[in-house]
Amino acid sequence: MKYPILFLNKAKTLNNIKIMSDKASNLNLAFRPHFKTHQSYEIGSWFHDYGVTGITVSSVSMAEYFAHQGWKDITIAFPVNILDVKRIIELAQLIRIRLIINSIEVATFLDKHLSSNIAVYIEVDPDYGRSGINIYNNSLIESLTYFIDYSKNLSFEGFYAHAGHTYKATNNSQVKALANPLLKIFSNLKSNYGGKLCWGDTPSCSILNKFEEIDELSPGNFIFYDWMQYRIGACNISDISVVMKCPVVAKFDDRLELLIHGGAVHFSKEYVMHETGKLNYGQVINPLDSTDTSNFIRSLSQEHGIVGCTNDLFNRISIGDIIDIYPIHSCLTANLMKAYVTETGKKISHFGSGAPFTG
Amino acid sequence: MKYPILFLNKAKTLNNIKIMSDKASNLNLAFRPHFKTHQSYEIGSWFHDYGVTGITVSSVSMAEYFAHQGWKDITIAFPVNILDVKRIIELAQLIRIRLIINSIEVATFLDKHLSSNIAVYIEVDPDYGRSGINIYNNSLIESLTYFIDYSKNLSFEGFYAHAGHTYKATNNSQVKALANPLLKIFSNLKSNYGGKLCWGDTPSCSILNKFEEIDELSPGNFIFYDWMQYRIGACNISDISVVMKCPVVAKFDDRLELLIHGGAVHFSKEYVMHETGKLNYGQVINPLDSTDTSNFIRSLSQEHGIVGCTNDLFNRISIGDIIDIYPIHSCLTANLMKAYVTETGKKISHFGSGAPFTG
Repeated sequence: MKYPILFLNKAKTLNNIKIMSDKASNLNLAFRPHFKTHQSYEIGSWFHDYGVTGITVSSVSMAEYFAHQGWKDITIAFPVNILDVKRIIELAQLIRIRLIINSIEVATFLDKHLSSNIAVYIEVDPDYGRSGINIYNNSLIESLTYFIDYSKNLSFEGFYAHAGHTYKATNNSQVKALANPLLKIFSNLKSNYGGKLCWGDTPSCSILNKFEEIDELSPGNFIFYDWMQYRIGACNISDISVVMKCPVVAKFDDRLELLIHGGAVHFSKEYVMHETGKLNYGQVINPLDSTDTSNFIRSLSQEHGIVGCTNDLFNRISIGDIIDIYPIHSCLTANLMKAYVTETGKKISHFGSGAPFTG
Repeated sequence: MKYPILFLNKAKTLNNIKIMSDKASNLNLAFRPHFKTHQSYEIGSWFHDYGVTGITVSSVSMAEYFAHQGWKDITIAFPVNILDVKRIIELAQLIRIRLIINSIEVATFLDKHLSSNIAVYIEVDPDYGRSGINIYNNSLIESLTYFIDYSKNLSFEGFYAHAGHTYKATNNSQVKALANPLLKIFSNLKSNYGGKLCWGDTPSCSILNKFEEIDELSPGNFIFYDWMQYRIGACNISDISVVMKCPVVAKFDDRLELLIHGGAVHFSKEYVMHETGKLNYGQVINPLDSTDTSNFIRSLSQEHGIVGCTNDLFNRISIGDIIDIYPIHSCLTANLMKAYVTETGKKISHFGSGAPFTG
């Protein structure tokens, strides 16, 4: 085995799928999971058992990959890049796709260039500041609904919103306080214009039990969770289903630090703030005490990771040991590792591990 | 063309190689460039014209890749992971390799398990705190030289040091003030124990013109440079030879921001501090004014980049335009993009773009 590897616990992963699928089903919501987190046709196939037929992806390339694997109903939850129009037309000939738009400019372009009708969501920005028409900009939202209605090749699917600011929360209550009022405002759009409402951030999908007038849930990260989600309160530590396994290459006793093979090209440089106020680039698991959060990656360069340890853990670890580390952001770590290894040693491939669909 | 792409200016890249190669040659230093930045056999082959025969890499996998491409003298500039000993033995049967060690523990392990003699550098830490025996820890350094001398299968090549703290500098003088005293202390090791001295960070290799008793230079990033190196003072803006080309997907005039397709999976989440005190994840090039540094990526999520613009640039850019962006850290961006595209539209592959050697 060549380390570092990204270890995947299949039972926990299936349980995460089941819990979210059950929640959607109990609330009578469509479940259209976002596949950008795992980016794997094999892991994607696990959703079949939970009745999932519609999925969400974040690029045309990823939609092509999953269409090729037999998925026939895909939302591309990234605003249409007009340069991709030819690829979109080709894809729409093969499967049902749903697009995201947030301007009259792109809507008119699509209407002019599409050869057949495609469903579009209007993306609204729930005051997060990333993408979409600001949720309070009624005149622009209304104009776009009028245009879609008027257009020949666009059909109105509804509204899409990503409340990414829940990722900045540090507990359950903050997520609720943020998401609940936004869900109310988002739901007003349905009263005013009809259509479906699609909502997707993992923190609110995991924490809330009521979603106002929402019709579809499309979270992605929940399948694995990670240390950031645990810190937000979106999962328990025991729910995190992927772990980086990194070899200890050197020990420096003057500073109680370990050098591991595991750097920015494995973990990504995502971090959370550790209780001590230091940046935490990966949460080391203490095998003797699952509640011990004092060991973590303090810095990352390209291939190097520096782990700060308690005296106790430092002394129990030897050069050549493999240590287990929860990634801070599993989507980015999976994207870099490009493969998973399960309990049985089975290797599961990732979108990025094969050549034809990347680029 | 599927955007985003990582555009490579070949003429600038060759010029960067020539300048560093000439500097090493004029100073009578061996030039052993670090290939972790470009990770490409084709780009690696460009070094042949500058007389380079020995190279540096940062993992055994990368050494295997370049050995397969005909390189016969490779320093693996990452401390030996004892779990890799079998692969190291196999590689040493094919080519000349040089290893890095920083403990008696790993040295004894290697001596016991190697089947033939391999050259090792002792890694010293020039007070950077990443890896190596602290440069002031004379007793440990001396013990290790004794052991290597005593060993059957290790031959003493010299000392290796990476002064990575020069990356934190914000001007030329800081780099000099940091590196010059360290070079003096590093040079003492040669007086005391003999061997060669190998030194490699791009800031000091680019900025300094005297390297005390150093024998070998092994920088990597200089081949492309990037916005971080410009900010450190290691290069001019015009020396940066790679540029991300990203499509503009949406414009938000209420906040003078653009949405581009270009996210953390393309750029990495490396940042520098912008003059305004905000985090800068990528420096947007103003095509009408190369001195304008006010447009930059303000935030990145998986596939989304949000560019903050001046009013002027915002108004000149349309949806569907491709904008050029200097990466903050070209090593990490190249590692994510896994391919380069040159002026002529030629695609150059990267270690990570083929399957067999990654993992």
